[in-house]
Order: sequence, then C-alpha cells, then structure tokens
Amino acid sequence: MSRIAMIGAGHVGATAAYALMLRALVSEIVLIDSDPGLAEAEAADLADANALARPARIWAGTYADAASATIAVVTAGAATHGSETRLTVASRSASIVRACVSQLAGAGFGGIILVAANPVDLMALVALRASGLPASRVIGTGTLLDTARLRQALAAELHVAPTAIEALVVGEHGDSEVAAFFAARVGGLGLAQFQAPAPDREHVARGVREAGYRIIAGKGYTSFGIATAIVRICEAILRDERAILPVSVALTGEFGITDLYLSLPCLLGAGGIERILLPDLDAAEQAGLRASAAILRENLAVLDAGS
Amino acid sequence: MSRIAMIGAGHVGATAAYALMLRALVSEIVLIDSDPGLAEAEAADLADANALARPARIWAGTYADAASATIAVVTAGAATHGSETRLTVASRSASIVRACVSQLAGAGFGGIILVAANPVDLMALVALRASGLPASRVIGTGTLLDTARLRQALAAELHVAPTAIEALVVGEHGDSEVAAFFAARVGGLGLAQFQAPAPDREHVARGVREAGYRIIAGKGYTSFGIATAIVRICEAILRDERAILPVSVALTGEFGITDLYLSLPCLLGAGGIERILLPDLDAAEQAGLRASAAILRENLAVLDAGS
Amino acid sequence: MSRIAMIGAGHVGATAAYALMLRALVSEIVLIDSDPGLAEAEAADLADANALARPARIWAGTYADAASATIAVVTAGAATHGSETRLTVASRSASIVRACVSQLAGAGFGGIILVAANPVDLMALVALRASGLPASRVIGTGTLLDTARLRQALAAELHVAPTAIEALVVGEHGDSEVAAFFAARVGGLGLAQFQAPAPDREHVARGVREAGYRIIAGKGYTSFGIATAIVRICEAILRDERAILPVSVALTGEFGITDLYLSLPCLLGAGGIERILLPDLDAAEQAGLRASAAILRENLAVLDAGS
Amino acid sequence: MSRIAMIGAGHVGATAAYALMLRALVSEIVLIDSDPGLAEAEAADLADANALARPARIWAGTYADAASATIAVVTAGAATHGSETRLTVASRSASIVRACVSQLAGAGFGGIILVAANPVDLMALVALRASGLPASRVIGTGTLLDTARLRQALAAELHVAPTAIEALVVGEHGDSEVAAFFAARVGGLGLAQFQAPAPDREHVARGVREAGYRIIAGKGYTSFGIATAIVRICEAILRDERAILPVSVALTGEFGITDLYLSLPCLLGAGGIERILLPDLDAAEQAGLRASAAILRENLAVLDAGS
Repeated sequence: MSRIAMIGAGHVGATAAYALMLRALVSEIVLIDSDPGLAEAEAADLADANALARPARIWAGTYADAASATIAVVTAGAATHGSETRLTVASRSASIVRACVSQLAGAGFGGIILVAANPVDLMALVALRASGLPASRVIGTGTLLDTARLRQALAAELHVAPTAIEALVVGEHGDSEVAAFFAARVGGLGLAQFQAPAPDREHVARGVREAGYRIIAGKGYTSFGIATAIVRICEAILRDERAILPVSVALTGEFGITDLYLSLPCLLGAGGIERILLPDLDAAEQAGLRASAAILRENLAVLDAGS
Repeated sequence: MSRIAMIGAGHVGATAAYALMLRALVSEIVLIDSDPGLAEAEAADLADANALARPARIWAGTYADAASATIAVVTAGAATHGSETRLTVASRSASIVRACVSQLAGAGFGGIILVAANPVDLMALVALRASGLPASRVIGTGTLLDTARLRQALAAELHVAPTAIEALVVGEHGDSEVAAFFAARVGGLGLAQFQAPAPDREHVARGVREAGYRIIAGKGYTSFGIATAIVRICEAILRDERAILPVSVALTGEFGITDLYLSLPCLLGAGGIERILLPDLDAAEQAGLRASAAILRENLAVLDAGS
Repeated sequence: MSRIAMIGAGHVGATAAYALMLRALVSEIVLIDSDPGLAEAEAADLADANALARPARIWAGTYADAASATIAVVTAGAATHGSETRLTVASRSASIVRACVSQLAGAGFGGIILVAANPVDLMALVALRASGLPASRVIGTGTLLDTARLRQALAAELHVAPTAIEALVVGEHGDSEVAAFFAARVGGLGLAQFQAPAPDREHVARGVREAGYRIIAGKGYTSFGIATAIVRICEAILRDERAILPVSVALTGEFGITDLYLSLPCLLGAGGIERILLPDLDAAEQAGLRASAAILRENLAVLDAGS
Repeated sequence: MSRIAMIGAGHVGATAAYALMLRALVSEIVLIDSDPGLAEAEAADLADANALARPARIWAGTYADAASATIAVVTAGAATHGSETRLTVASRSASIVRACVSQLAGAGFGGIILVAANPVDLMALVALRASGLPASRVIGTGTLLDTARLRQALAAELHVAPTAIEALVVGEHGDSEVAAFFAARVGGLGLAQFQAPAPDREHVARGVREAGYRIIAGKGYTSFGIATAIVRICEAILRDERAILPVSVALTGEFGITDLYLSLPCLLGAGGIERILLPDLDAAEQAGLRASAAILRENLAVLDAGS
C-alpha cells in the first residue's frame, strides 16, 4: 500500500489524514507542519485510533519522508478569516505553498501534488511552477467540494439521495464559480422532468456559493467537507480509478481559456489528470466560466506583481 | 438503520459524527449544542461530505429529535485547559451534563447514554442520576482510549500491529488510572516471552497517562482518538456485538468497589453493559485500582458537596 | 442493526449473505432452504469468516426467524440450465416462490420482499400475489444487474470508471430487455461527445443481454454479479437512501403498461418503492419497452394458465 | 494499489477475489486457471459487480500478468471429495501446485506466494521448492481458518463476540491439528475464569477439526471461510501490518521441528513471514504438535517417494 504526505497539519490536513485512515486507503501517512509540535500532537491523536481501527502508520515527519509518497497533499496556507474572500489571502498563502513545494521538489518528490490551500486555483498554479512536475501531476481540489454541495443541495430539495444527482460546479473555487444546471440530471432525468417546478437555480447556486462562509461563521473554519473531497481525489489516484471529477487543472485552450488553473471535470487515474472534459454548458454558463477565468487572471496578475 | 444523537458539537462530537458517517454505522445523526450556530455549521460541514461518501442524514436538531435515538453520546462539558486536570473541571461539566441528560429524559429518551465528557467517571455517574435509566444503559468512554494508547505504545515498542496486543487500562480515566501489565499478551505470549527485556512498564504507563496532556499542549484539545473510541463503543452496541471493552461502568462490589463509575472490561451489546468482568490483576494492580477508586470517591464527595 | 432473511441458500443466496456480512450492512442473517443440510453448511461456512471480519450472526433457520426481518430476499427458484431461457423455468420457479412467500406470510412477515429468482419479473408478481403486501414492498432485482453490466461494458469501451457512466437497462430482465442509450452519459457528456465514434450500441447491448448466458456456459450459474445487485438494493432500503435504481416493479400505467412487473428506475427507501420514474427514452426505446411488456404479458398468461 | 494473482478460479479463488474486491484491498485481480473458460466466466461475473461497488480491474489472464503481482494466491489443487482426507489428494495436488508455481517462477514472479491448496502444509513445501523464493515469501493458509473456527466455537459457547477470544490452532491444517487451549483467553481471562465450568475442550476441538468435513457434506466444498482467511493474510501483507496470525510456515527448529511446513503464529508484514513465534503450549499440546509434525513428515515421505 501507499504513503501519503500531508503538508500542513491544521484542521483540514489532520481531518483528511483521519478519513484516509478510517477508509483504509493507505498504510502510511506522514504529517509535515511548520509547527512540529502541532504535527506531533495531531499524529499522536490520530495514532490513538490505531488500535481501534484498521491500523496505519502515522507520524510527524519531514520532507525527506515525503519524497517517496504517492501523493503530497498541500493543505498549508494562510487561513481565511471571517470577512476575507479566498483571494485576499492569496499572497500570504502563495509564499507558504511555494516554500512547501520547493522543499518537496528539493527532497526529490516525484509523485502527484494535490493542492487544497486557498485560493486553490491560484495556489495550484503556484505549486506547479515550484514543483518541476508536469501539469498532469499538480491538481487543485477546486470545485469538487462545491459540486458535492450542489448535489447535496439538490438532493435535499428533491428529497432523493445525493448519489442520484448528476450536477457540476465549474470555474473558480470561489465567488465566481458557475453552478452548471444545464446538464444536471436526477436519476437520468432533467430537473424539471423530475419535479415541476424545478428547484430555483439562483437560490440553490447562492446557497452553494455561500456555504463555506456560513460554515466559517459558525465554527471558524471548514474541515469535514474539504477533507472528504481530498480523500475522494486521493482514492481515484491511488486506485487508478479513471473516475471523472471536477478538479482544478491547468487549462490549455478549453473554452478558450489557457495558462490558468480552474475546475472542469477531469479523468483522474494513477497518472493524475488523464484528460480534461468539456462539459455541456449553455451559453450563460459558458459566459460565466469565462468571467470566472477573467477574475482569476486578474488576481493572478496581482499576485505575480506582488511576489 | 439507527439514529445517533450527538449532544455537544465541539471537536469531539463533530469528529465522532464524521467517523460514524465514514464507517456507515448509522443512517441518521442529529447534532445538538447549546450554540445552535455551531451545531448548524458542523452539520453543514458534515453534510458536504454526503455526496462523496455513503450518505447519512445529518442535521442540527433538538432533544425531541434525540428521543428516538438508539444512543445519545454526551460530549458536551467544560473543556480541559492546559494546566487543569480532568477533575478540576468537574463542577462546571457536571452542570452541563446534568442539564443535557435532564432534557434527554424529558424528551422521553429510552436508549443508551454514552458519556465522553470529562472527568468521564464522575460525569457518567451524574448522567446516571439525571437519566432515570438503569446503570446498564449509562456508560462512560472510560479507559477505552487509554487502553488503545497502551496497545499502540506497546505495539510501537515491540514493532508489531496494535491488534496483536492484549492489554488493559482500568480505573479512572485520568491520573490515577492503572495500566494492567500482568495479563498483557502479544500474539498470545507474555511481554517478556515475546521480547527480553520487556518494555519498561513505568515508562510505557507514564506515556499513556500523559498522552492526553501532550496532545492538548500541541493542538489545544483531543479529538481523533476519543472520537474513535466513541465510535467503537457505538458499533458494539448498534451491532449487538457482545464485544469486551474497558468502559466506565457503575460498580457493584467488584474488587470491593461500589457506588462509583470507573473502568473495568465489560461485555457490550444491544442492551448496553451486559456483564462486568474481573480482569486478572496482580496485587499491585489491584491496589492501584482501589487507590484510583478512593481518589474518585473523594472527588465525588467534593462534587456532591458543591452542587 | 437489522435482520435479513435469505430464502434459498444456493449460490446466489449464500454469496449475497457473504457480501452483506463483508459490507457490515446487517447484524443478523438467517438462511432458509428446503434442503436444511445445505443451509446449515452454508451458514457454517459463512460463520467461519466471523472471527476474521466484522462479525454478524448467521444461522440456518426457519420462517419463524424470518418474521422479524427487515427484508426477505427470495433467491429460491428453479435453476436456469444451459439452453433454457429464463422464461422456460417459470412454471417450476413459480411453485417454489409461491410456497416460500406463503410461508413468509404465514409467519407474519411484514417487511419488504426482494425477489431474485428467475424469471424475476414474473416471480415478483407471483410473490406479490402470495404475500398480502402492497406492491411498494415487493420488488424484483430486475435490470439492476443488466444496468451494471451496461455501465461496465461502456466503461471498458471508453476506458473510464464504471461509476462515471450513467446508463440504464429497462424492461424485462431477459432477452427482451432494452438498453437505453438515449439518455446515457459519461461524465455528464453524451457518449458521442465523449468519444467519436461512440461505442456501437447494438454490439454493446448484445453483450449485456448475453452476459448471463456466457457466465453460465463457463461456470454453470451466476453468483457474484447478482449477489452484489441484491446487496445494493438491500443497502438502499436498510439505510433509507432514497437512491434511484432500476428494479422490477408493479407498473400502474407507466408508458401505458399496467398490471405487470418490469424494470424502470425507482426511488428506493425504507418503505420500498417510493416512486417509479419515467426515464428519458427515444421512440425506439419506448417501442422496445412496450414489446418487452407484451412478451412478459404473454408469458404471464402461459404461467397463469398452467398454474 | 496492488495487483493480486489468483491461481485457480474455482470456488475458493473466485470467492477470495470477490472478498478482495468488496474490501477494496487491491485495484487489480488477475484470475488464472487451467480452464480459461472458467476463469473468463468468473472474471465476467465478478466484473458485473464493478459498477455497484468500489471498482477494481478483474480479468482472466496469464502468468505474464501475474509476474508483477504483490501476492500470488495458489488455490488450484485437486478437490477433496466426501470421504477423502486432505492427505489423500496430496499427490494429485502436488503436480498441479508444482506446475503453477513453476510457471510463476518462469514468468519472473518475485512477490509472495500464498498457498491455499490442500493438503496445505505439504503444498506450501512443494511451492517453496518450485518457487526459487526464500521461505519467508512462501506461506500456507494453514490453521488460520481452524483458529477462526475455534474462536467462533468458543464465542458461541461463551456467548461473546469472536473478536473477544484469543485462541489458537497449531500444527497440521488437518486431522492432527492441535487446538491450544492452554493460553486461550476471553476478554483477557482464562476460559474457566470467564465461565465455570469452561467449555469442554475435546468437544470444541472435535467440532473445529470436523468443521470442514461437515461443510463439504452439506454443500460439496468450502469457500467463504477459507476465502476470508486468504483475504486476511493478504491484508496483513499488503498493508505491512506486522499482524500475528497462525499460518503454515517452514520451521527451522521450533519445538524441535525442522524442514517441514506447519502452522505456528507468525508475524506477517510486507516481507511475508517476519518472525515465527513459539506459543505458550502445555506439555500435551507440545506433544500433539510433535505428533502432527510426525504425521506430516510421513506423508511428505510418501509424497516425495511418489513424485
């Protein structure tokens, strides 16, 4: 079985490690944090679960330990506080992500980097540049979480299992994200075929867009949702599933967008991104996606100017 | 499938809910907290995982929702801060636990109460008194966590899987706990048979006793270990396993101790505590257990005097 | 946790019991067979796995044991031999299913009956008549297995995970079944959008239709696929998932068809069939579905005339 | 994730492949059988489950496909019929096992061979000789299944979970096996401490010894128990667990026995057998073990003379 390196032992990293352990997906998890005392405490707390579950080796380690990992998950970054958007923390996060990935690269890491630090689309690009890896091997968690929220929200409205919903959020993992209802299906039917009138799109989309803010307002951070998204992506890679999931990926002309990371559905396997898919978007959704790209491009320019 | 009520949506309660969900043990989890905003945020964060895992219904609810739960897990209590022992927070916790359990009782709850609030042995007794339930249906998490730590510590020293270790911590979940090495086995062998010299008992026992403090020093609280212990006990009850686990239980004369909760190995099934076992302790361990009981009795007297 | 009664301890019933056990979905499984020695041998073989997995209680029992089960799975029936179609064994199977369900009813069973005996659409109707239960609580495994085969076949052609495929087989679980490509999607895209040219529909549909015959030719019977389909339906019911799965259901006018069991996508929850969906079929697929219904109606007439 | 090669696609091999798939332990399973039609039918039946579970790649393949597997499980062998003991089929099985392992070796296989063909102790030695591998990498399933049966039998007698029982069967996987009660524990207690009088040893031991025969009498073969034992051993190796399990291993002087395979508790990790343990046996149990070795030595001589 494989080793995962968790770079950043905050709420997201530690919770993702816990979920990897409970799902028995890997046999070794190394936690790395700029605060070694935190990494050691989280590793000790996680290891306490070992005798009560299917055991894995979990320890607070170093970039040398990460070198042989199949996947390095970068959760380290500046925290989003109450009134900040994901983009305002970009510059602080970029320094952190750059430093982490440079140390990974310096240790000879040759696996796949999964970036969860926010603003994730910019941070995935920062990680790519610092990694020396091909773009197929540097992935951002992107809108997988937003997509899970959209499916969950539609499931609640339509009173069905979220697994019965096909729906997609594309673009930035952030305020400019695009909930794509055009191709949404429930049990193979269009939403309005399933239930008339269909759920109100703007209401649902707003709920999804604001979900992270609401959770942060109530508990101070997000952890369980994003940790589960991390684990789902790791699973698809570790098991070479060739699953199709929306993640943040380096675009090369899709919908006319290039040289940016943003989320489109991707075929994920042992090699990382095996293919980027062009989802079925109506004209408004395509325009939204391009607008999202424009916003990301502006923010990238600001970030690049400041670094 | 069953419903679990999680009373207290702090780190322990929310993490235990996440583990219940990932292990697919229940189909419904209701979170109840004196801060409804916190419960709602944790429920929302947990529900975000729904479309990415085997789904469960998770919501922030009320004691009325808890009435039909199979198990109510009481994690609400006063937090242990850096220099405090578990006992110094007893009085504050007791008020909270008493209030929660009274509301459970008022709602007509007739399931099993699992207390994880610290100091857990006293809080389980407080819960029993407030619950109107028989003692077999009010259980404290007790030393299951300490036992997991002992097994993990011995496993690390002996370089074997923790599942290969039989070992036990009894008595108070706290500073007076007793690591029982007399009957400890690894792969069916005595420790010294397996490896000579055997691991140093005092060194190992101190590490186990101080594990919680060290984790709190590093991350501010404990969550993953205790959450996994909660889930293990819930599993044994929900699946009517008749597993034998050390938990905090109302003693009725075992080792001469009565009218106190402390941990001994118990047979756990759908009815809660089905039997208390008398483990194989040497004279020193038996003396340690009685000393632990004496300390708990003193603290109970202080607590009762103050309430 | 719940009890499942497995009526028929042949390859399908025993394998489904094993999968229920490995997936830890229930805590009690009772095997009932007209050959008590077979049921006892299978129960003993399954129980041997108990100490190596998450344990469940598994025993060879009686209809009295089945009375309190949440679900009774009827796998007993006449075997399909090499050259026989599923319909030629109808009469023999009908006697067996009728006898089993009558005994269930006589024991006071009030749960949900899941019929897997072939020809499953006719046998589900036979079971309904003998059960005294509402149609929502008598379900046939129907084309869930064929749908899994179709998704797996398309996944292999398109080199993606089967979980990325949305596709459906409706109608008879048998030679007249209809593979519905019109609404098929891979990662949210139409098949031809995903890959041009799209897989050859007739080739894929024939492969799905003949899969059971090919497996029977090679190993004499089918077990793993159908057992997994049984477990998937049980999971949706036990966990009250409100999942949407194609199963055999009593139609009440859908596509003009009435008074027959055949497969359409259904919303499945704790109550059994909660809703029948009208999938998006093109004209040819609708015609195929009606032709399938006509064949089933003819066979039903033959069966009714002979009984 | 890893690849497992299943050599022999009969009931045991196919069922073990199914369990590996349901437990999501590997991502690739290749089935190899002297009857390619059987292997193809089993692979097709197993693959039908793919779209309904966590998918794995399962196919009927060749020894070239097995070369890169982490573990090759040899289930191919002559079947035990009603009145035959495991030893009477030795010669026929030996030819089959020798041929399979030679082809594995010829394909450059360098992983771990797990032998489940009966008589398993002799077949493991035959496999060792043909493999060119060190003895630490050629393992027989041995008495892990008998040990599971003993734990299950004691659990039933004592009305506790089988996981609460520590007990061991050593020696031959067959009529001369030794149920070792001396060190047996339930919840850490001796059997008579837990319940007086203790279960009758001879009655329990006979039940365990005859379990396989009774199952074969009822269903014609055994599958679920042995498949689960195979999966448990594979899990310990794949996850580098360092678990302690009784398996058939090449002895090098333990209890005075050498140059024979028989079962003693072993430390199992990524390298296969990491250490053989000397369990706590009383004088009668030690004598029984040496008698078991003597019987195996005689049978080996007969087998060697005949080959």
